[in-house]
Amino acid sequence: MYRSERTLVFLRHGESVWNRENRFTGWADVPLTATGTQQARRAGERLLAAQIAPVAAYASMLKRAIHTLREVLDQLDRPWLPTRFALELNERHYGALQGKDKAETERRYGVEQTAAWRRGFAETPPLIAPDDPRNPRFDRRYAGVPEDSLPRGESLQATLRRVVPYWERVIAPVLETGPVLVVAHGNSLRALAMHLEGIGPEAIRERNIPTAIPLVYRLDSALGVRNRRYLADDEELAAGLERAEQRP
Amino acid sequence: MYRSERTLVFLRHGESVWNRENRFTGWADVPLTATGTQQARRAGERLLAAQIAPVAAYASMLKRAIHTLREVLDQLDRPWLPTRFALELNERHYGALQGKDKAETERRYGVEQTAAWRRGFAETPPLIAPDDPRNPRFDRRYAGVPEDSLPRGESLQATLRRVVPYWERVIAPVLETGPVLVVAHGNSLRALAMHLEGIGPEAIRERNIPTAIPLVYRLDSALGVRNRRYLADDEELAAGLERAEQRP
Repeated sequence: MYRSERTLVFLRHGESVWNRENRFTGWADVPLTATGTQQARRAGERLLAAQIAPVAAYASMLKRAIHTLREVLDQLDRPWLPTRFALELNERHYGALQGKDKAETERRYGVEQTAAWRRGFAETPPLIAPDDPRNPRFDRRYAGVPEDSLPRGESLQATLRRVVPYWERVIAPVLETGPVLVVAHGNSLRALAMHLEGIGPEAIRERNIPTAIPLVYRLDSALGVRNRRYLADDEELAAGLERAEQRP
Repeated sequence: MYRSERTLVFLRHGESVWNRENRFTGWADVPLTATGTQQARRAGERLLAAQIAPVAAYASMLKRAIHTLREVLDQLDRPWLPTRFALELNERHYGALQGKDKAETERRYGVEQTAAWRRGFAETPPLIAPDDPRNPRFDRRYAGVPEDSLPRGESLQATLRRVVPYWERVIAPVLETGPVLVVAHGNSLRALAMHLEGIGPEAIRERNIPTAIPLVYRLDSALGVRNRRYLADDEELAAGLERAEQRP
C-alpha cells in the first residue's frame, strides 16, 4: 500500500537512577527507576489512545531505552514487533563526565564550561583514557565493533554523525510500511531532530526533549516534516521540558 | 574465530495461565502466570551459572515465549541481544481444541483420540472454520503473511514442516558466531528435536520438554548432536518432565 504520509515516533526513555541523581549518564548502562517504568507504561497508553500502531521499533543498546520500549510494546499489546537495538542510537558518550553530577561538574569546570558541554553542538567533554574501564571497548555488547569507531567522549555533533546515517540507512526505509517507534536518549534524539527539522547548531541549544512523552512526527514522502506534536497536555509537557532543561 | 563446537539452547516458556488450567493453548496468546515469570528468571540464572552467554536469541510471536526470553536476557544482563520473533517458532496450532481443557476433550472425543492428537506425529486436530475469530488471518501480528500459509490446526508433522526450514535458513547459520538461544513451545521444540536428534514419529511420542529448564545441545560443525543436557538437577528435571507429560 502506498502511503503519502509517514508517521515517526520519538520516545526518550523514562527516568533512570542517574537522571534522578542529576548525574551525567552517557553510555553508562543505568536502569530505570520505578517512576521511569511507570512513565514508560504511560507513554504506551498515550500511543494506544492516539491509535498509533507501530510496525517496527528501534532502541539503543542501553537498558533504560530497551526497558522503556518493552513497557510501551506491552501496553500496545505488540511485544512481537520487529525490534532492533543499535549503538548508533545510544546517548551521547559523556566522556569523563559520566557518573559526575551537574553541581560537581560546575564546581570543578565552571558553570559556563559545563553549560557549553551540555548545550553546545561542537564542544567535546574531556575524553576517558583508553584503558579507563568505562571505555566501550571493554563492554561485551560492542564486541565486534572496531575499537577506533567506539567513542571515549562525544560532542552533539559527533553523536549526529553516527545517528543520521543509521536513520537514513536503516530506519527511514521502514517508514514506508507504517509507523515507526524510536526509543532513545536526550541527545541522540536531539541530533535526529536537528537533521529532520533542519535545526542549526545555535537553535539546538534551546531544544529539550522530555522523558517518556511520545513525540509524533508526520512526514511527507520525501521525509520532510509536515507537523510534530507531543502526546501530552500543555501542563505535562511544560513540566517535562522544565525537567529536561535542568537535568544533565 | 572458527569454532568446531556449537552451542544451542532450547527453552520452553514458563507456566502460562492456560498451562495452569490444563487447556490446549496453541496459537492463543496467553500470558505467563507469576510462577511462569519466576521460572523464566530461574532459567536465566541457570544459564548464567553455566556460563552460557548467547550472542543471539529467537522466540515465537507469542507473549509467553517473548516474556520468558526477556526475563532470561535480564538475568544474563544482555537485554540488548539481537532478537527475532518468528511465527515459525509458534506452538503447534491446536485447531478447535484451543481453549478446551484436557478432561473436556477426553470426554467429548475419547481418551484415545485425545492422546493421538497430543502425542501423535501425523494426527491433525479438528480445524477451526475460516471465519472463526481464532483464525490467525484475523490477528494483526500475522498481517502480510499469505492467508493460505496460516494454519487452522496442525499436526506435529505440519509444525515440523515450518520449524525446520526456519531453523536451517535463519538460526543454524548464526551458531557459527556463538551460542544461540531459542525460546519456544512444547511442540515446536519437539519438532526441532526430531530433526536435530533424528527422532522418528514413534519415538517422539515419549519425548517431553519441561517448561523453563534450559536444554543445552553441543553440536559439531555439521550440526550433528554431540551431547545434550538439561540445566537442572535430576529431581527438578523429573518433576518438570512429569508435568509436561500430564499437561496438554
